[in-house]
Amino acid sequence: MGAPLLKKSGIVNVKFGDNVVVIEPSNIYGCTIGDGVFIGPFVEIQKNVLIGARTKIQSHAFVCELVHLGEDCFIGHGVMFINDLFVNGGPACGDRSLWKSTLIGSHVSIGSNATILPVNICDNVVIGAGSVVLRDITESGIYAGNPARKISGIE
Amino acid sequence: MGAPLLKKSGIVNVKFGDNVVVIEPSNIYGCTIGDGVFIGPFVEIQKNVLIGARTKIQSHAFVCELVHLGEDCFIGHGVMFINDLFVNGGPACGDRSLWKSTLIGSHVSIGSNATILPVNICDNVVIGAGSVVLRDITESGIYAGNPARKISGIE
Amino acid sequence: MGAPLLKKSGIVNVKFGDNVVVIEPSNIYGCTIGDGVFIGPFVEIQKNVLIGARTKIQSHAFVCELVHLGEDCFIGHGVMFINDLFVNGGPACGDRSLWKSTLIGSHVSIGSNATILPVNICDNVVIGAGSVVLRDITESGIYAGNPARKISGIE
Repeated sequence: MGAPLLKKSGIVNVKFGDNVVVIEPSNIYGCTIGDGVFIGPFVEIQKNVLIGARTKIQSHAFVCELVHLGEDCFIGHGVMFINDLFVNGGPACGDRSLWKSTLIGSHVSIGSNATILPVNICDNVVIGAGSVVLRDITESGIYAGNPARKISGIE
Repeated sequence: MGAPLLKKSGIVNVKFGDNVVVIEPSNIYGCTIGDGVFIGPFVEIQKNVLIGARTKIQSHAFVCELVHLGEDCFIGHGVMFINDLFVNGGPACGDRSLWKSTLIGSHVSIGSNATILPVNICDNVVIGAGSVVLRDITESGIYAGNPARKISGIE
Repeated sequence: MGAPLLKKSGIVNVKFGDNVVVIEPSNIYGCTIGDGVFIGPFVEIQKNVLIGARTKIQSHAFVCELVHLGEDCFIGHGVMFINDLFVNGGPACGDRSLWKSTLIGSHVSIGSNATILPVNICDNVVIGAGSVVLRDITESGIYAGNPARKISGIE
């Protein structure tokens, strides 16, 4: 029996723009956060993430490496991003050549508890709460369901 | 580059009944919590929420403004409530006239990772784990799926 | 009006193997954690859980009592396990004879935000992100959806 190595969540090596608010505890490291971003409690943001100005990251969200978020986005509570599709039947175990990237445009609002596989999403998109997004979204509109499908335009 | 404004999660301006237990860290503010309520860790409860006596809020849950929960409810782990339907194609950005309320009766049990859009749910309802509830529930029973549909009565 | 009983999350009465890493804050108690396990932040693991060697438990996951996880598993961010099916129309309220167990084999990878009802899952299985697993899985392969169904083998 051993004693575990305990590490504390915190904010390490992050480039912040002006007027950013972070509610602690959060675990945020090695990423770049634009002006006016809000980050709620119980959030993890991994290294090399870029978050555009005025985007809001709500509580319990997880933003993994290889995710770039545009400006004026809303990432709901409990939203999870993914970069590893387990292509070889399990996690990539550090082989980043197997990871996939996610590129989210601006004015994208993602409802709470949605799950975002590695995809590209264009500007002006709404993703319904609880949705699972499996494919790229190249047309503005409202998408929902598992898997997420377009349910309407934005009026 | 700026330094972020860091705020600590905590318990601020909450009216507690008797015999409430809270596991920290949690972020709970401006709400009213009934007698005998249990609140697990990593929970956020926003202002003006009402939680009835003996209701249990499990870890990782998020209860937003405009939610009223009845008595003897069970809110599972990772359950997310919602008040903003992005009706104008994005978040209401502080315009509360666009927010919708949620009213949950008593003896309502909501399974883990369920997502609850702004709806009314009557007494004596079970919501299956992982469900997405889009519409009012006016009849006691068991509901599940995305979107949640009635799958049986309660025996 | 009363003052709540506040309890702190922490690590209490846990048997750790060698080379375990835990990112705090987490709430872990009364369980047994194998060699080389990684546990991310904002995780809760309840008593009597067994976690096999080299398994990774990602941020925001919840592992309840009566869950046994094998070796070399990956439990994604926000994955929730369940032991109470509300068989009498609500939570078991401490009557453990009503709880059900979950047995996960080895080399099982569960995608983020998946919800795992009390089931048995054999070795060498991938569960897609956002899935809801309602039934036992006895055959290696890739499963996804709500409810989760087999979508392919593992090549």
